[in-house]
Amino acid sequence: MKLYHEIIVDLGERSYPIIIGNKLLDGGFDLTDFISGSDCLVVSNVTIAPLHIEHLLPNLMGKKIETIELLDGESHKSVATMQKILDKLVASGANRDTTVIALGGGVIGDITGFAAACYMRGVSFIQVPTTLLSQVDASVGGKTGVNHPEGKNLIGAFHQPKVVMIDTDTLSTLPDREFRAGLAEVIKHAVIYDMAYFVWLEENMQLLLDKDSAALAYAIRISCEIKASVVAEDEREADRRAILNFGHTFGHAIERCLGYGEWLHGEAVAVGMLMAARLSDIDSADLARLQKLIAAAGLPVDVPKIEFEDWLSAIGMDKKVQQKRLRFVLLKALGNSHVTSSFDESLLYGILGTDS
Amino acid sequence: MKLYHEIIVDLGERSYPIIIGNKLLDGGFDLTDFISGSDCLVVSNVTIAPLHIEHLLPNLMGKKIETIELLDGESHKSVATMQKILDKLVASGANRDTTVIALGGGVIGDITGFAAACYMRGVSFIQVPTTLLSQVDASVGGKTGVNHPEGKNLIGAFHQPKVVMIDTDTLSTLPDREFRAGLAEVIKHAVIYDMAYFVWLEENMQLLLDKDSAALAYAIRISCEIKASVVAEDEREADRRAILNFGHTFGHAIERCLGYGEWLHGEAVAVGMLMAARLSDIDSADLARLQKLIAAAGLPVDVPKIEFEDWLSAIGMDKKVQQKRLRFVLLKALGNSHVTSSFDESLLYGILGTDS
Repeated sequence: MKLYHEIIVDLGERSYPIIIGNKLLDGGFDLTDFISGSDCLVVSNVTIAPLHIEHLLPNLMGKKIETIELLDGESHKSVATMQKILDKLVASGANRDTTVIALGGGVIGDITGFAAACYMRGVSFIQVPTTLLSQVDASVGGKTGVNHPEGKNLIGAFHQPKVVMIDTDTLSTLPDREFRAGLAEVIKHAVIYDMAYFVWLEENMQLLLDKDSAALAYAIRISCEIKASVVAEDEREADRRAILNFGHTFGHAIERCLGYGEWLHGEAVAVGMLMAARLSDIDSADLARLQKLIAAAGLPVDVPKIEFEDWLSAIGMDKKVQQKRLRFVLLKALGNSHVTSSFDESLLYGILGTDS
Repeated sequence: MKLYHEIIVDLGERSYPIIIGNKLLDGGFDLTDFISGSDCLVVSNVTIAPLHIEHLLPNLMGKKIETIELLDGESHKSVATMQKILDKLVASGANRDTTVIALGGGVIGDITGFAAACYMRGVSFIQVPTTLLSQVDASVGGKTGVNHPEGKNLIGAFHQPKVVMIDTDTLSTLPDREFRAGLAEVIKHAVIYDMAYFVWLEENMQLLLDKDSAALAYAIRISCEIKASVVAEDEREADRRAILNFGHTFGHAIERCLGYGEWLHGEAVAVGMLMAARLSDIDSADLARLQKLIAAAGLPVDVPKIEFEDWLSAIGMDKKVQQKRLRFVLLKALGNSHVTSSFDESLLYGILGTDS
């Protein structure tokens, strides 16, 4: 019996596997098959490293390991932090055969992947995501990068990992609020793409909240498969991939208007999904089901108080950009979504104005 | 009659043309066919911009042009300078359809290409190289990047341009010493790959030094074709591509030991090629021909005074790295080269010790 799930993200010569299971750290899965050279740099942060770094070392048996611990948090997702990784690579004499390993959440994965993309114009990269959000989101797609003071993820590269190893046991140390925020993306995958998965989530949300290993592995697998399907259709961002942004126009606006960090990304996306669903042409029973599932995950369902003008500006509908056509990811039904610039503007105004 | 040469660098979906001729600036060649959006950022430096930037504008007719002028010189080829380009892109509201245009020599091309590779994970990039070195070297290969304080080009990306436009008229404003340094790479292409081209250079060196348009266009075309042939065999760096480093192990050692900037890169490569030729199994008449051609280009042929121990360290033969096998690009004959770790060590010591 296989002790873990394996998904292949199919990108031609850049294809790679995602390994999902529990008891993978502490040597439960041998990462050295994916490491061609002898040198590795493990990049983590001051929160994650004390919890997991020594449990990762047995998975890298026989390799020469350097480590670097960054400060924790989105505010450190900068070119300056990326340069610290590059400095460490230079100082340790890293060469083209060096493998860089990201151990942590989305911020660590994004910065580390970008550093790996840039060092000597690209060295090998392995992801060991430790948050639910990064496990279901950053594992697939190859997006790496850092923030610019004027905007998130403005600087980066596409750089695919050699392998992604997801040990669901790492979720036991994840704060509950962050875990629930990750569930927002899980729900998103179901809503945009897969009604059967939506039903499964309705029936198994409590198991997920109880961090049942099998349930977690299943949800992470299906979420990664959905994202991989969407991304494989369209590796470089274009239309189809954009359905992964369901709930994100409103969600980003919430994050921006309330101040980044006030709401977690997943919390903002949860409410954003409900707002996008209201703007969609679906019946009220389906809308209620979605709201019920989001609430069951312990996520917010009430639109926060934001001024109407701030909404318009944050979603890009202020006068400055009105010549550009706004596009939304909307639902045709639960489990079926599309990108469209055709929406009911007065309904949108109602959602922004009357729900706040 | 065609007024310019066109080479296609064949890289599948990333293929692009190199346009070579004179009178291409001032609207002689329409670049807008290669620009999908409306916005362009022209990146140049304080030396080149006053000479050429207004002559480039007619080639971009109808586009919205922003410009940025960087400081001149290799010392500014840094992450910090690259960030200035990114800041400018952000400040001007650049989006995924923005095209970034490098107007200048190798430093400008490398930094600008890297910024284009990183902005929003990759925007379009056009090269207008204005030095002979960048015209025959950086035009082909897609290498972009910046220096780290501990090493050149340690940080970068592969990012292919949409088009490269080479106007040989820009060479009339290039300082003579820099022009001759560029000829070193031209000679290199002939020596490693094409005996007929070597003979052509022997016969036409004076025309090149006189900056005859037709001779320049021919040499740039053949050099680009040779580099494109080598690179197309092997887009990501590996064995075959390494022949382009002929003369560079010794050349880099000269630059490093004398202090960067003391000798120009091409000058160091000129002497480096002679040293590599001496280490090769070719007859002395061929060696003399190479030396004569290099001298005819006005390039140095005498090995500078460097301590033996410094040589060993600079070419990577000191004790610290002696476990690694040193590899050289050596000649089988004029016009025919290969990468090999098989060389006469005592001959090498003689070249390093007795010629200095």
